[in-house]
Amino acid sequence: MADQLHLNAFVFPAGHHEAAWRHPSTQPERIHDADYFHQLARTAEDAAFDAVFVADIPALTSNVAYNAVGGLEPITLLASIAAATSRIGLIATASTTYYEPYNLARLFASLDHLSKGRAGWNVVTTVSEVVAANYGLDVHPDPTDRYARASEFLDVVTKLWDGWDEDAIVLDRATGRFADIERIHPADHTGPLFHVRGPLDVPRPPQGRPVLVQAGASNQGRSFAARFAEAIFTAHQRLVDGQAFYADIKDRATRFGRAPSEIVILPGICPFIGDTDTAARELEREFNELTVPEYGLRLLEQLTGVRLCEAALDKPVPQELFHDAGDVTDNARSRLQVVAGIVQRERPTVRRLLHRLAGARGHLAVTGTAEQVADTIEEWFRNGAADGFNVMPPFYPGGLELFASRVVPLLRERGLFRAEYTGSTLREHLGLSRPRSRFANEAHVTAAGA
Amino acid sequence: MADQLHLNAFVFPAGHHEAAWRHPSTQPERIHDADYFHQLARTAEDAAFDAVFVADIPALTSNVAYNAVGGLEPITLLASIAAATSRIGLIATASTTYYEPYNLARLFASLDHLSKGRAGWNVVTTVSEVVAANYGLDVHPDPTDRYARASEFLDVVTKLWDGWDEDAIVLDRATGRFADIERIHPADHTGPLFHVRGPLDVPRPPQGRPVLVQAGASNQGRSFAARFAEAIFTAHQRLVDGQAFYADIKDRATRFGRAPSEIVILPGICPFIGDTDTAARELEREFNELTVPEYGLRLLEQLTGVRLCEAALDKPVPQELFHDAGDVTDNARSRLQVVAGIVQRERPTVRRLLHRLAGARGHLAVTGTAEQVADTIEEWFRNGAADGFNVMPPFYPGGLELFASRVVPLLRERGLFRAEYTGSTLREHLGLSRPRSRFANEAHVTAAGA
Repeated sequence: MADQLHLNAFVFPAGHHEAAWRHPSTQPERIHDADYFHQLARTAEDAAFDAVFVADIPALTSNVAYNAVGGLEPITLLASIAAATSRIGLIATASTTYYEPYNLARLFASLDHLSKGRAGWNVVTTVSEVVAANYGLDVHPDPTDRYARASEFLDVVTKLWDGWDEDAIVLDRATGRFADIERIHPADHTGPLFHVRGPLDVPRPPQGRPVLVQAGASNQGRSFAARFAEAIFTAHQRLVDGQAFYADIKDRATRFGRAPSEIVILPGICPFIGDTDTAARELEREFNELTVPEYGLRLLEQLTGVRLCEAALDKPVPQELFHDAGDVTDNARSRLQVVAGIVQRERPTVRRLLHRLAGARGHLAVTGTAEQVADTIEEWFRNGAADGFNVMPPFYPGGLELFASRVVPLLRERGLFRAEYTGSTLREHLGLSRPRSRFANEAHVTAAGA
Repeated sequence: MADQLHLNAFVFPAGHHEAAWRHPSTQPERIHDADYFHQLARTAEDAAFDAVFVADIPALTSNVAYNAVGGLEPITLLASIAAATSRIGLIATASTTYYEPYNLARLFASLDHLSKGRAGWNVVTTVSEVVAANYGLDVHPDPTDRYARASEFLDVVTKLWDGWDEDAIVLDRATGRFADIERIHPADHTGPLFHVRGPLDVPRPPQGRPVLVQAGASNQGRSFAARFAEAIFTAHQRLVDGQAFYADIKDRATRFGRAPSEIVILPGICPFIGDTDTAARELEREFNELTVPEYGLRLLEQLTGVRLCEAALDKPVPQELFHDAGDVTDNARSRLQVVAGIVQRERPTVRRLLHRLAGARGHLAVTGTAEQVADTIEEWFRNGAADGFNVMPPFYPGGLELFASRVVPLLRERGLFRAEYTGSTLREHLGLSRPRSRFANEAHVTAAGA
């Protein structure tokens, strides 16, 4: 644990609460406009957040009937935000299952250049099965196949990013030599799934490599994250669960030969902030009253695989439904455990459970004053559960503005968060070192042998 | 032919002249910086150009030893430029051979939203054979296979773009209905090469569809362009050749049931502009003296398939080498014809031929005063060879600034070019109508039948 925590703004069209777009304070009519996202990113940048983050599923589901989903593609959106900001990191989600490595390597390398070293890639294998049909697959690959592809994909992409030595561009006007091609290395990757020669047509990214982010919660996901990820998004309800996850990931990382400080763990937090505890609860109630139970039940099923009945909204959730993981997917099982914990501890009615999940889909929800939110953040940070937080405002832009104007100053007073940026790249914000190129040794050997 | 011509700025790192980066007026050290491209785009926008355009080959060749190639990926670059401009169109090149249609459909739909309707897609099948090895292919597909894929690819992508009816987003806060899923249509594409269900997760682009641009010069390329393209980039040395191409494309288009005005034909023009004819020639000479013959010979071979000898630089080009197209590819044959015409008419030395091609790779090169450049543009425009021009400044940023400050005012005086933008989308700039969704009829039938 470093002495300073990290804050990431998880951008979600009208806000993370599933009914945010219906609330009069939000602006769902702007969610396809660049200006709207520039405004959100500038709010986060003015508060010296480490990064903004955009999630992605390359498919549209009928959830769009109920919520402001379906929108801009993250990489292009963040390239636009890059031009409207100057310091904040930019983390885009993209799927290793549904991209070609050469295409994705150049998109992210280009984003890193366009932002002068502020790009991050949230590496996902895509959980949603409906995506397969958009890419000509009859069946969505199972997790084992997806992670095998993701591992080789990362191997290819990092080889491509590493290809240009730092001094490959010699720019010698006198002799007419632009680059020294001896210092540009092909990937020459030949693996079970990919054959990629390279080199990449984009010079080495300013950060060496864009920051690799991951959010796998399954056993395979954790193992993948511990091996490759430099920042991790995760979802926990209780400090003890956050601590267990944190310890597990850092332990796994050391087994891959990595230092614990090389991975920044950022649990999600969804804050409803009020001047008083009562005002905060009232604000949350306003949003919960706008939820559509049919939609909440559908989201619960998507999240956990458990289908509850609308007719029994005000009856207690049947406990036994959450004891058996059944044939849900590996990833759904991890979120199912989070929800099962809520059901077991709080014994909610179905309606209450839906409201508990409406804001943050199983992430930590804190409703209270700015002090209470800051207290929770400090508690998790000081007790080995978090290196910072992935902030998920229940509504945009107001929820982020409240966090920036109320919570961030408290974190600064407590010496937990920077007053201003001290670095200029996302790696510098997160305290991550610049990766050494895998061709660096090779060049050294050549030079020594020459 | 409309009464107003169109101008597109073909952005190329240090300029189109192959030695531009060596000239003291250029800024090759900035070619990976967003700011540099923002500046170029703003210069073009201040002059009310229709669009900026970025070419692309997803591979790096050893040409990088001699020239400032290898750079930013076009779609991300244009997303960045979109945020730094407000009116100018943004045309990115992307390959149907090496992308998945769902991925590319959403990247361009997103770019169109981010720019509020200024996106264009230069559809290429990729000629360069070295690309195949970056995507796991042993052999680059032949032109027939590439165009078959391109046709089906466009069918899929336009289905995806058409999927959301204009009124699909109902945004009814009162009832909690965000979108009417009856008005969002899956692509349900099942073809020989692609199975894509959809719908796209990005709402219908502001332009309905981004503008489709093409540059195919082969017989297959022309046929494809006449069927799908709304703007065409092309290369000719002489008015008569431009006229023949123009007539051929418009004729082919009518055979596909399209109006000639639905395709805007933009030959390339590379202008060296001086206060006097002598000054312009002196400027061109400065650049030509910076060329590296070995590199020029290599480019000539890449362009035409013909390999000339460095030892014979000051001897006449052997005519017979350009009589036989031999086993060059179909696309190279079209450019070979352009070069063969130069050889036949001008009987140049090898060095002179290399200099003739150094600025514009076979495109029309005009060296002279602003009046002479404007005269050529007017002549081609008034005589059925062009609806406008793809301006290829031999050096950036100065070559574009000269064109904007010297040539554009003359074109305005002659009533040939707009004094300011009259529309806000690329379609409006180019005089193209907004495409009707292929699902519009279906919706109409449903409504009528209800």
